[in-house]
Amino acid sequence: MTKFKYSKRVPAEGTDTVGAILKAAADPKIISFAGGLPAPELFPVEKMKAAVDKVFETHPTEAMQYGAAKGVTVLRQAILDRVSKKEGVKGTLDNVMVTTGSEQVLDLVGKAFVDPGDTVLVEQPTYLCALDVFKSYGAKFAGVEMDEKGMRMDSLEEQLKAHPEAKLVYTVANFQNPTGRTMVVERRKKMAELAAKYDVLVLEDNPYGEIRFEGEHVPAVKSFDETGHVIYMSTFSKTLAPGFRLGWLVADEEIVTKLTVLKQSADLHSDNLAQFAVAQFLEDNDLDEHVKKISDLYGKRKQLMVEGIEEYFPAGVKYTHPEGGMFLWVEVPGVDDTVELFKDSLKHNVAFVPGDPFYAGKPKPGAFRLNYSNMDEESIKVGLKQLGEALHEAVNK
Amino acid sequence: MTKFKYSKRVPAEGTDTVGAILKAAADPKIISFAGGLPAPELFPVEKMKAAVDKVFETHPTEAMQYGAAKGVTVLRQAILDRVSKKEGVKGTLDNVMVTTGSEQVLDLVGKAFVDPGDTVLVEQPTYLCALDVFKSYGAKFAGVEMDEKGMRMDSLEEQLKAHPEAKLVYTVANFQNPTGRTMVVERRKKMAELAAKYDVLVLEDNPYGEIRFEGEHVPAVKSFDETGHVIYMSTFSKTLAPGFRLGWLVADEEIVTKLTVLKQSADLHSDNLAQFAVAQFLEDNDLDEHVKKISDLYGKRKQLMVEGIEEYFPAGVKYTHPEGGMFLWVEVPGVDDTVELFKDSLKHNVAFVPGDPFYAGKPKPGAFRLNYSNMDEESIKVGLKQLGEALHEAVNK
Repeated sequence: MTKFKYSKRVPAEGTDTVGAILKAAADPKIISFAGGLPAPELFPVEKMKAAVDKVFETHPTEAMQYGAAKGVTVLRQAILDRVSKKEGVKGTLDNVMVTTGSEQVLDLVGKAFVDPGDTVLVEQPTYLCALDVFKSYGAKFAGVEMDEKGMRMDSLEEQLKAHPEAKLVYTVANFQNPTGRTMVVERRKKMAELAAKYDVLVLEDNPYGEIRFEGEHVPAVKSFDETGHVIYMSTFSKTLAPGFRLGWLVADEEIVTKLTVLKQSADLHSDNLAQFAVAQFLEDNDLDEHVKKISDLYGKRKQLMVEGIEEYFPAGVKYTHPEGGMFLWVEVPGVDDTVELFKDSLKHNVAFVPGDPFYAGKPKPGAFRLNYSNMDEESIKVGLKQLGEALHEAVNK
Repeated sequence: MTKFKYSKRVPAEGTDTVGAILKAAADPKIISFAGGLPAPELFPVEKMKAAVDKVFETHPTEAMQYGAAKGVTVLRQAILDRVSKKEGVKGTLDNVMVTTGSEQVLDLVGKAFVDPGDTVLVEQPTYLCALDVFKSYGAKFAGVEMDEKGMRMDSLEEQLKAHPEAKLVYTVANFQNPTGRTMVVERRKKMAELAAKYDVLVLEDNPYGEIRFEGEHVPAVKSFDETGHVIYMSTFSKTLAPGFRLGWLVADEEIVTKLTVLKQSADLHSDNLAQFAVAQFLEDNDLDEHVKKISDLYGKRKQLMVEGIEEYFPAGVKYTHPEGGMFLWVEVPGVDDTVELFKDSLKHNVAFVPGDPFYAGKPKPGAFRLNYSNMDEESIKVGLKQLGEALHEAVNK
């Protein structure tokens, strides 16, 4: 019984399972693969400091005064240039909006499109924070099947037919959170077609796309969008630093205009100093070179993780083979209760995020997510050995 | 007819009257009293740069990595110390949360408490952005009468009886936006009592309270709150700089916990670099000294505005006498259409915000808001002369 009366949007007591998981995993003696943080040793501290200093020297007043809800023009231009070059996404400045982290894109899109009872189609499994945000606006979910090539378009079309009133399809096409899977190019083309055909919006969330350590780049779903039905979103959180809270979206001008009004009501605009500083950083430095360092490190850590899985995990365990990003997905046949497995793993001083909260529908038992970006090499080895012991116990129970 | 299907929360086309007003007022030949910006010439550029540099030198990783939704501890402590010292607000760290500007407090409180159809009680007139935010969550409004001593408690109690299901009372008790009025201490005590008696939450928005250039400080409504029914909110936007987007709230621990969950879904957390930098600024500098400079300048500008009104405006014009803050409220008897008056004033190359959008209910004709914080002294004189000419024409129409 709460002391005050909350709206229906506020989650009920005790539903923050992930919070509880991360809290349990925060014990310093536990090697935690549960988080989703970038490697802080690669933050470009000196170069960012230089960029901030330059902003204070050249236009401090603009950086400290109120600004436009859509974001600082020089940063929006830099984003447009990069998205156009990297992803083949076309557009003008009117299609670009800066947000307070990409989390805010989820929030604004949820607010703008999801009325209580509206259906949102999501990958099975999907990014759990997206589920939380859309749920807070009253969304119902329908799950779309995935395989190693990403979201399955036959399953998507089936769900679109079953839910003709669906407002939104949410996808993380590159190195998906939580599975690490990447959608192949044919499906991306098909997805843009289906969005137009069924007049439904696709929200393409691409936080990890630049962090590729193997294989070939695949162009964004948005690059195949000819009708404005795809909203593309990304962030500087994985390529530069998450602390500045700078994300963005590229979308049809009408959508950008509507979302700008909602952003005014959300926080007026994002931090101007951070926006100018990141724009300055991009002007003075080669982001590609920096991203390569990140990709190389994460690739090495992912490889160590794969070797650890092969060496220590029970036979029959399945796992994904991400070509980039920060996460890998494991399925342990014979384990029915993944939360129980999580608790057992804590006794072995190792943690992960159980798969259950990533599912809008029925979760797959024995599945969980491992993060490899935020862990030194030695800890990856030791942690996987410990996790292997826990898994052996679990399958022999 | 829009191209895409939006939720009911998205304002209809053509309802952004204030946006249209500010756009019209942005013409460089127009002297605009329409905005609400602090004086940028007082931004503490060098001191803030020094604070940012120190953060990069001492704890860059924390500033650039993901952080806690509630905010950076050292900043929350500094806020708690200041609110306790300045406003007599008691509490612990668990009562304090940092937000992305105080606009985000409005958004989170609206999201947490206002279900579609719920009633929010507001001063007549009130801060128009608060109306927009609460409206986006489906609020209905009931107006509470004000006089020179702030919101009238007899009117508030009457409305609380008429709307027993009301969720929220919103007040700007110090130097109110738009009227510049301040609520007297007896009413503040009474307000805390009424909140407890009717089990309704008061949202006390205090962005301007420290910018006092005349009269005596009045303690916050929150300082009289013994039941947790008052949510106190403020910001660094008026005392330091708005560009960093840092606001905060002090509330009952249960409320802070609920709002923290919603903040995670809104933007995960506020900019860590900005939070650490402001905390560093507060440690290394005397904010009181800086605030005194701001207050002195705004006091001087307000005085010039009063002199201009006395000299140039038609007899019978009424105006408020703010002892602080950034706004002054004018009522011109005999003028029925304030938007028409606005258009006429543009012809005299001067602008203001017409009173109408500040009213939840029936607007008072001939009322408008003038801003004096963001205008050099010469322009205040010239602008008021021009506005006086427009007013003389209007009353003689």
